[in-house]
Amino acid sequence: MSQLLQDVVGEFSKLPGIGRRTALRLAMHLLKMEADSVGEMTRSIDRFRNEIRHCNCCNNLSDRERCPICEDPTRDRSTICVVEQVADLLSIEHTRQYRGLYHVLGGVISPMQGIAPSDLKIDLLLERIARGEVREVILAISTSVEGETTSFYLMNRLNQYPAVKVSTIARGIGFGDELEYVDELTITHALINRREISPK
Amino acid sequence: MSQLLQDVVGEFSKLPGIGRRTALRLAMHLLKMEADSVGEMTRSIDRFRNEIRHCNCCNNLSDRERCPICEDPTRDRSTICVVEQVADLLSIEHTRQYRGLYHVLGGVISPMQGIAPSDLKIDLLLERIARGEVREVILAISTSVEGETTSFYLMNRLNQYPAVKVSTIARGIGFGDELEYVDELTITHALINRREISPK
Repeated sequence: MSQLLQDVVGEFSKLPGIGRRTALRLAMHLLKMEADSVGEMTRSIDRFRNEIRHCNCCNNLSDRERCPICEDPTRDRSTICVVEQVADLLSIEHTRQYRGLYHVLGGVISPMQGIAPSDLKIDLLLERIARGEVREVILAISTSVEGETTSFYLMNRLNQYPAVKVSTIARGIGFGDELEYVDELTITHALINRREISPK
Repeated sequence: MSQLLQDVVGEFSKLPGIGRRTALRLAMHLLKMEADSVGEMTRSIDRFRNEIRHCNCCNNLSDRERCPICEDPTRDRSTICVVEQVADLLSIEHTRQYRGLYHVLGGVISPMQGIAPSDLKIDLLLERIARGEVREVILAISTSVEGETTSFYLMNRLNQYPAVKVSTIARGIGFGDELEYVDELTITHALINRREISPK
């Protein structure tokens, strides 16, 4: 195999979820693309890797010191939604239903993987709350053991601000999920947290 | 969303089989990689796109005028295996069972997609055969309508060299395939081309 082809297949294979066969298909696709388009792609990748920063307020990815959400004057600055990672923030933004701010922890507490609370942006969150503008913190952290540990840890730390309400997003049966295939813990939660629908 | 992130997600999404969600996951992975590794990756992509050439003998991808297979003095120069694309050549090479040369057509004849025989490297193949060294041409082209048309066209063109044997790779039931799920045409071929296994 040509060295150039071997190199590019090797590089693509390093990406998650891309095996050698897919890597080869991607390499062949590069030859069908205009050379300029390939150049644009690699420039975007390099610029992203070298120039992207973290918002110094909420830790979201950002081109500047502050991310567009933190800088948006129309957002509700009294509510902060705490998420593990940027992808979660984007999923929530996609709904267009949430108008508050965010805080990206950058992971969850995991003694197994050696991730301590100090490795996450928790102090930055507490500093934001200490400034006094925040009235509610919504925890939108996953229900894994590590996620629950992180939520519990945050709840304890947030106790020192009794004026701040702490909530978590609702757990239950997803729209379109079939009850038959939903795990028992989720069904149990959904039953306990049932909502009355008869008119009051 | 940050512009830099949006750009890189957009670029990844242009690749085949990569949707926006996968593109986002790849972008996030870039941040976990060393900046140097990302630079190496983009350099490989650029070099591959700009410097790769086609072997002027067999049309395989190559770093130089001749590909490593054509230059290998230990390969059997009397046999040429004709394939549609470089990926097919690599699959055959992977078996380590074939020691002849190759010829990469660069596609199949397809009036629907406007691909005429002149768009493929057929003349280059005939020139190689005209030099007189070749004794067998193995057609390893897919069994699609376009592939069969291409094989038929090549057979006709190769008729002018009666000293050259033309063969096609065997069609039949693949190892591990379950007869229950194999299509009727393949089963019919496999029956007609059955091999006697009793001792002669």
